[in-house]
Amino acid sequence: MSVQSISTGVASTIEEIQSLIGDRLSTALAVREHHGKDLSHHPLQAPDAVAFAESTEEVAAIVRICARNKTPIIAYGTGTSLEGHITAVQGGICVDVSNMNEILRVGQEDMDVTLQPGVTRKQLNEHLRDMGLFFPVDPGADASLGGMTATRASGTNAVRYGTMRENVLSMTVVMADGKIVRTARRSRKSSAGYDLTRLMVGSEGTLGIITEVTLRLYGIPEAISAAVCTFENLEGAVDTVIQTIQIGIPIARIELLDDVQMDAINKYSGLDYPAKSTLFLEFHGSDHSVKEQAEMVQDLASENGGGDFQFATSTEDRSKLWQARHDAAHSCNALRPGCVLWATDVCVPISRLAECIHETKKDLATASMPAPLVGHVGDGNFHLCFIIDPDKPEEMAEAQTLNGRLIDRALDMDGTCTGEHGVGLGKIAYMEREHGEGISVMRAIKKTLDPDNIMNPGKIISMN
Amino acid sequence: MSVQSISTGVASTIEEIQSLIGDRLSTALAVREHHGKDLSHHPLQAPDAVAFAESTEEVAAIVRICARNKTPIIAYGTGTSLEGHITAVQGGICVDVSNMNEILRVGQEDMDVTLQPGVTRKQLNEHLRDMGLFFPVDPGADASLGGMTATRASGTNAVRYGTMRENVLSMTVVMADGKIVRTARRSRKSSAGYDLTRLMVGSEGTLGIITEVTLRLYGIPEAISAAVCTFENLEGAVDTVIQTIQIGIPIARIELLDDVQMDAINKYSGLDYPAKSTLFLEFHGSDHSVKEQAEMVQDLASENGGGDFQFATSTEDRSKLWQARHDAAHSCNALRPGCVLWATDVCVPISRLAECIHETKKDLATASMPAPLVGHVGDGNFHLCFIIDPDKPEEMAEAQTLNGRLIDRALDMDGTCTGEHGVGLGKIAYMEREHGEGISVMRAIKKTLDPDNIMNPGKIISMN
Repeated sequence: MSVQSISTGVASTIEEIQSLIGDRLSTALAVREHHGKDLSHHPLQAPDAVAFAESTEEVAAIVRICARNKTPIIAYGTGTSLEGHITAVQGGICVDVSNMNEILRVGQEDMDVTLQPGVTRKQLNEHLRDMGLFFPVDPGADASLGGMTATRASGTNAVRYGTMRENVLSMTVVMADGKIVRTARRSRKSSAGYDLTRLMVGSEGTLGIITEVTLRLYGIPEAISAAVCTFENLEGAVDTVIQTIQIGIPIARIELLDDVQMDAINKYSGLDYPAKSTLFLEFHGSDHSVKEQAEMVQDLASENGGGDFQFATSTEDRSKLWQARHDAAHSCNALRPGCVLWATDVCVPISRLAECIHETKKDLATASMPAPLVGHVGDGNFHLCFIIDPDKPEEMAEAQTLNGRLIDRALDMDGTCTGEHGVGLGKIAYMEREHGEGISVMRAIKKTLDPDNIMNPGKIISMN
Repeated sequence: MSVQSISTGVASTIEEIQSLIGDRLSTALAVREHHGKDLSHHPLQAPDAVAFAESTEEVAAIVRICARNKTPIIAYGTGTSLEGHITAVQGGICVDVSNMNEILRVGQEDMDVTLQPGVTRKQLNEHLRDMGLFFPVDPGADASLGGMTATRASGTNAVRYGTMRENVLSMTVVMADGKIVRTARRSRKSSAGYDLTRLMVGSEGTLGIITEVTLRLYGIPEAISAAVCTFENLEGAVDTVIQTIQIGIPIARIELLDDVQMDAINKYSGLDYPAKSTLFLEFHGSDHSVKEQAEMVQDLASENGGGDFQFATSTEDRSKLWQARHDAAHSCNALRPGCVLWATDVCVPISRLAECIHETKKDLATASMPAPLVGHVGDGNFHLCFIIDPDKPEEMAEAQTLNGRLIDRALDMDGTCTGEHGVGLGKIAYMEREHGEGISVMRAIKKTLDPDNIMNPGKIISMN
């Protein structure tokens, strides 16, 4: 499909959508540019127009117009994706669902919630707090739950509570022909046919647009305790994680930050942690169980060269402790003001984690830019953050090479090129190697559900 | 496709497969009939031949022959399905994978296992015991793990450990064109494209044949304690379950048996439980946590008219306690020797469970056959077991009507027509009502991945 033919279609698409939603369709350059760039290093590619949708039916009507004119459609929540997911590589219409931000129903007995896709995770947890419930998936950014669903997001709590894969019960999706589909009933389990819910989770807007999501909720634990532990070396920290998982301690968070990252955080936040490999931990449960879990992990840590736990139990102290972890990205920015960040995202079987991190650190030894490491290591998932000088294209090329080698290493260990950020633009090149013949199955599904390739084209799989 | 045209194709299919695997292809009537009937009330429909496959490559070669001749293929594990999944409604080749029963790799560090599809769950747990690991999904029958994957099975432990949906990490599948696909890498999570693993879990052999499965394992808990508790009435038992889940007690099993079922079990097993609504419970954890959990549930039970817990903690006593629960089906058989059993399988949001069971019991009041109730109630899933005199066709018709009303009731409550048994033949009629437009998405996927409809045709969705 040539760019020319799209542009012709777009003119009448814009006209038709305008007559449907009036000035909630914008072609202003600032609006388009705002919607053509996410948080990643991928360059801005603006859509031709942005439609601010307000209901499932409106999204369906917009999709039908786009389908008729074969105009690309890209769904947009908060724009916090990390692999260029929302860039309009073939132009087209960006459907911004951030105004669809109503929490439609909280099922306190069923511990579930149904909401519109523009609701963000912080908004949801704010809403739930007084009911004693919470939604655990926390990717860092205050992302929209529609976007988190589309990306199969996870983050710090996944080791205990699972990812979006485990926590989405059902959703409403507008398919490429404008058909409205509900992927599942609200019961906790079902064996009634193909798992459309899981098919849509992680499909990054390439199969349909999510307009409603039903999520699983959890009771706020009776007791929460957080701790920080510094290790003599990286291996000790990683071994502690592996042993914690293997013993079956139901740890809620177990995050690794390497020496480079700790140094950056100290500088950014004015803290004085030792610049050594460090674990940030959190325990959820009854008072007794939290104490028991912490003692067991402290014992493991001690055997692996870890120091004493610094605990934080009050809400305020815990927030302060975790702020340091959450500031990891900001601290990278601060290391080299004006820099561009490039976050890698491999995930390997935990038995290979120590080796994978070790080899990676060796590979970074001669890198010309800093690359702090943080990891949701309980799942075998870790990130490097390349801190790149945008005026030095050779650094971008070097990051690309280092990332390629990291992914090769993870794939050799039966891991994945992306644990939680998704494919977007940045991982397409690795999908063939990761999935082999599986790609042809994905491609067949994409082709049959979106025959004109209008749903977020150019993402996840190359259709050529 | 007429039966005639299939039969013509089958002759040359049989010849070609015979030249491939010799006498491991059987056309003996006894073998064919054995493979044409599962444990359900659905009538025998024998395949034209049974191929005993021994490797992924062999299954692929058989599928390629069938694809060329457009011959139906039905995968077969232990034949313990409950909705006619393995009946050869259009004839064709049954691919029996029960000889593919090798455990290929246990990852003690990663707590996962890769095995061939014919391995049964008891065989697996026997193999794992000395390593301190176990696989929790327990549908009752000693089913093959390939079959459990294809059916999205669950059972008594699902409330704590999830179903096959949560516990299959990856699999190898032979697609309808003979292509061999691995659905995912072995890492615990990934955001790399469409979730082919979850697409295949529960696809009942209609999209491909599973020839290898990687499953998640768990550490055998430090302490296990089981208990039985009798209630004054059904509502009290159900309310106890709901409150247990809502408080977030990580109960491992919480099974409901109604008065009719308890009476049948007493008679069958020579036990003397009160013939009243009863919960069978199991707690997993550390010594202290098991004690704490049990005390909390005992408190809830007491408030809801439950009696004292009768505990069983030794392996032997627990086995005896659970034997009574596992004998539920046998006890139904014993109630009416020579009878046919028909197990229903709805699952509803737990907030609607009491109402759904209550309405169902009311509807059963005038039924002309006994219909004991057992339920994995922590998930909102329960079964009636219609005990039908095969010489009275009017009882089969009545069961059909009662089951239809039960499913309508569950769907009205946003539940599903099958919580764990699968669709097979028995639930096809309800899929349209349960999924609405979703059926067209399922049908599109089936059509594109199996254009000639050779993979277990006539199951899950009507293709007409």
